[in-house]
Amino acid sequence: MNASFKKYTAEFIGTLVLVLFGCGSAATAGGELGTLGIAFAFGLSIVAMAYVIGPISGCHINPAVSLAMLMKRKLSGADFIGYVIAQVAGAIAGSAILYAIIVSAGLPTTGLGQNGFGAGYGIGISATMAVVVEIILTFVFIYTILGVTSSESNAAVTGLVIGLTLAFVHILGIGLTGTSVNPARSLGPAIFVGGDALSQLWVFLIAPLVGSALAVAAFQLLNKEKQA
Amino acid sequence: MNASFKKYTAEFIGTLVLVLFGCGSAATAGGELGTLGIAFAFGLSIVAMAYVIGPISGCHINPAVSLAMLMKRKLSGADFIGYVIAQVAGAIAGSAILYAIIVSAGLPTTGLGQNGFGAGYGIGISATMAVVVEIILTFVFIYTILGVTSSESNAAVTGLVIGLTLAFVHILGIGLTGTSVNPARSLGPAIFVGGDALSQLWVFLIAPLVGSALAVAAFQLLNKEKQA
Amino acid sequence: MNASFKKYTAEFIGTLVLVLFGCGSAATAGGELGTLGIAFAFGLSIVAMAYVIGPISGCHINPAVSLAMLMKRKLSGADFIGYVIAQVAGAIAGSAILYAIIVSAGLPTTGLGQNGFGAGYGIGISATMAVVVEIILTFVFIYTILGVTSSESNAAVTGLVIGLTLAFVHILGIGLTGTSVNPARSLGPAIFVGGDALSQLWVFLIAPLVGSALAVAAFQLLNKEKQA
Amino acid sequence: MNASFKKYTAEFIGTLVLVLFGCGSAATAGGELGTLGIAFAFGLSIVAMAYVIGPISGCHINPAVSLAMLMKRKLSGADFIGYVIAQVAGAIAGSAILYAIIVSAGLPTTGLGQNGFGAGYGIGISATMAVVVEIILTFVFIYTILGVTSSESNAAVTGLVIGLTLAFVHILGIGLTGTSVNPARSLGPAIFVGGDALSQLWVFLIAPLVGSALAVAAFQLLNKEKQA
Repeated sequence: MNASFKKYTAEFIGTLVLVLFGCGSAATAGGELGTLGIAFAFGLSIVAMAYVIGPISGCHINPAVSLAMLMKRKLSGADFIGYVIAQVAGAIAGSAILYAIIVSAGLPTTGLGQNGFGAGYGIGISATMAVVVEIILTFVFIYTILGVTSSESNAAVTGLVIGLTLAFVHILGIGLTGTSVNPARSLGPAIFVGGDALSQLWVFLIAPLVGSALAVAAFQLLNKEKQA
Repeated sequence: MNASFKKYTAEFIGTLVLVLFGCGSAATAGGELGTLGIAFAFGLSIVAMAYVIGPISGCHINPAVSLAMLMKRKLSGADFIGYVIAQVAGAIAGSAILYAIIVSAGLPTTGLGQNGFGAGYGIGISATMAVVVEIILTFVFIYTILGVTSSESNAAVTGLVIGLTLAFVHILGIGLTGTSVNPARSLGPAIFVGGDALSQLWVFLIAPLVGSALAVAAFQLLNKEKQA
Repeated sequence: MNASFKKYTAEFIGTLVLVLFGCGSAATAGGELGTLGIAFAFGLSIVAMAYVIGPISGCHINPAVSLAMLMKRKLSGADFIGYVIAQVAGAIAGSAILYAIIVSAGLPTTGLGQNGFGAGYGIGISATMAVVVEIILTFVFIYTILGVTSSESNAAVTGLVIGLTLAFVHILGIGLTGTSVNPARSLGPAIFVGGDALSQLWVFLIAPLVGSALAVAAFQLLNKEKQA
Repeated sequence: MNASFKKYTAEFIGTLVLVLFGCGSAATAGGELGTLGIAFAFGLSIVAMAYVIGPISGCHINPAVSLAMLMKRKLSGADFIGYVIAQVAGAIAGSAILYAIIVSAGLPTTGLGQNGFGAGYGIGISATMAVVVEIILTFVFIYTILGVTSSESNAAVTGLVIGLTLAFVHILGIGLTGTSVNPARSLGPAIFVGGDALSQLWVFLIAPLVGSALAVAAFQLLNKEKQA
């Protein structure tokens, strides 16, 4: 198996795990799990995957992370495209497995951990505010990733710190937008759920990429010289 | 005490702790503890045991982990048999202590943290889906173990990462199958509870071993060259 | 951008994140999140920020921490003033964003995660006891910071330990005073909420600074010689 | 201040923090915090204290830990007595502060996080079973401490591992005995609550010491040669 294909396979597996376990926990156990539990389901997917697919592909499992690495010239344009395709495919596969689990249990397939906003979703924030929230959540997530990965001395704890930070942005975000910070994670469930999840999807495709770009800019401005 | 006997004793103690604390928390405090709490009860058993019996036996405390190590030629066939016997004995001993606690409190002995599926267990997934779920849960758990233990630089955090990953697969799995990923852990309570726990036990004996074998295959295919 | 301005910008961002995510989680998801979840929202803000703004400014994001560093002569008087202004500005900005989120969802703006005491707040402790509690909470938080940062060998886990300690003091403190241990964090929401939050604010401005000074004194007395 | 007095002061502070925050969280926020939250309140007290008083006294803050260190000849007989007196004094002081908080809020002083068993406490296990449970909980806690502290390479994560292990034994134990594993922690609240807490105290004074001694014996038998 060539090196590129290994990387894309790793990203496929990782994003599948993120979506199946994160969205799946929210969809099948939300009530008994609570907001903190759902946040940990997403966050610990990074802890698990970082230590096994990290050495292969860097464990982005998120187009917003891959965009940041592209901007930092740590990922080629060709690999960026390959990564994003693999991530989207993984997210769809994870959502498909979750769909099958839900169907098998005879539960309604209207809840697959999709993101959203407006009346009937979370506390009901507006579209504008959903964009702002997703930009902020993604900024914090990506800015921390850039920080923790910039120092060799953090190597052993990097996966833990990034995973806990993903849990962190979910704690606030679950009640607001469900927390995307990851276009692939939002696309997967939306395809199966349709309706609002699909019509509101643009927010979760665009805002995380904007937040990521802003985080790279902030890092270049504030941190870069310091590290050099 | 000879070295083999020390290893088997360590595996006995570790599996006893995993089953008594994990299944015990689910059985005696499930409601006030919630899904996240039960997940941590199982996960933290690894954190605790890894740093004390890890240096003796590797802290497998799970036949699916021992199978992976056998396939990776890090465990001899004779030790594999010894480990599995010790793990099963530990799981039965842990379940027996839990049984005594439950009886002492005058509670029904029908709930000992056993695994299951179908109507009346969790969200009620089918047998086929239970097999699929257990294969996926175990794949993720074992694949992460193979990853994190393949790099010396992770040594200090290995126990934390594996423990958090076991918590992770429980967060999703508790509502589906109760999360086995460990034939010994399923066998222990099933013996005392009988009924469905015993008739459905085959899923939790076979699926984790299949998931483990697939994780080893994936690791050989995707990660091995990278590490070499 | 000059080095001082970078530091102040980092403190501004970090305190904004602390207040928006910590107070925001309490205000928008309190019920489904529970006390432990709110505690982790505050604690994980440190985990996230320490690894990215830590290398710039030390990630104080709290005037009580900056006071301790001033007393330890690790921060100049001029920087102390700059840090505190940046922290207060960040806290106000974080509260303003939270206010906009709350308004966007049509929720009452009377709950922004403000601190308090007396009838109608938490379990209803007295003003005197609120002062005592905040001194103790801050003492524990700052004393641990001084300890963990005094040894180079803790470098990789310092952010994790300080973050978990902030979560720790919140677990006890949320039901008592809401846990300030940070004058900037208390000031931000109080400005927007007014009423009791503003009239009781003096406790949360003064007590954390007293607790911090006592922690420095204890560290000098008990730990210093040991470390030298 | 001489070195012994510093050690005893450190143990006093650490045990005060353990009891005030652990028992205090259970007593003032039990319902909204849940079993997992209370477990973390106790566990994170170790995380916080280990990194600051650890370098002074070893952060035992528990006579059962000090007994293990005495048996391992890492603590002199004189220091053992000094440590235990300091721990008991710290536990009483922590309980006294908690008592004052409870009184200040006008709550009944019958719940101070005391340990217990029998009808009306937790799930209502018998005295015999309470002894067995406390021996097992303490065995697991102390055996892990002996393991993680026996290897220099764990230095940075030792406090985290021990703290998470204390949380771990609380997850199972809270519903059974409230989890002592620490005679000082049980003595403090019992003095203020009286009644059953005092008449049942013997279990929580003796069983943790037995569990600790068994853990030392197991470690000598199973681990010692391995480490040497």
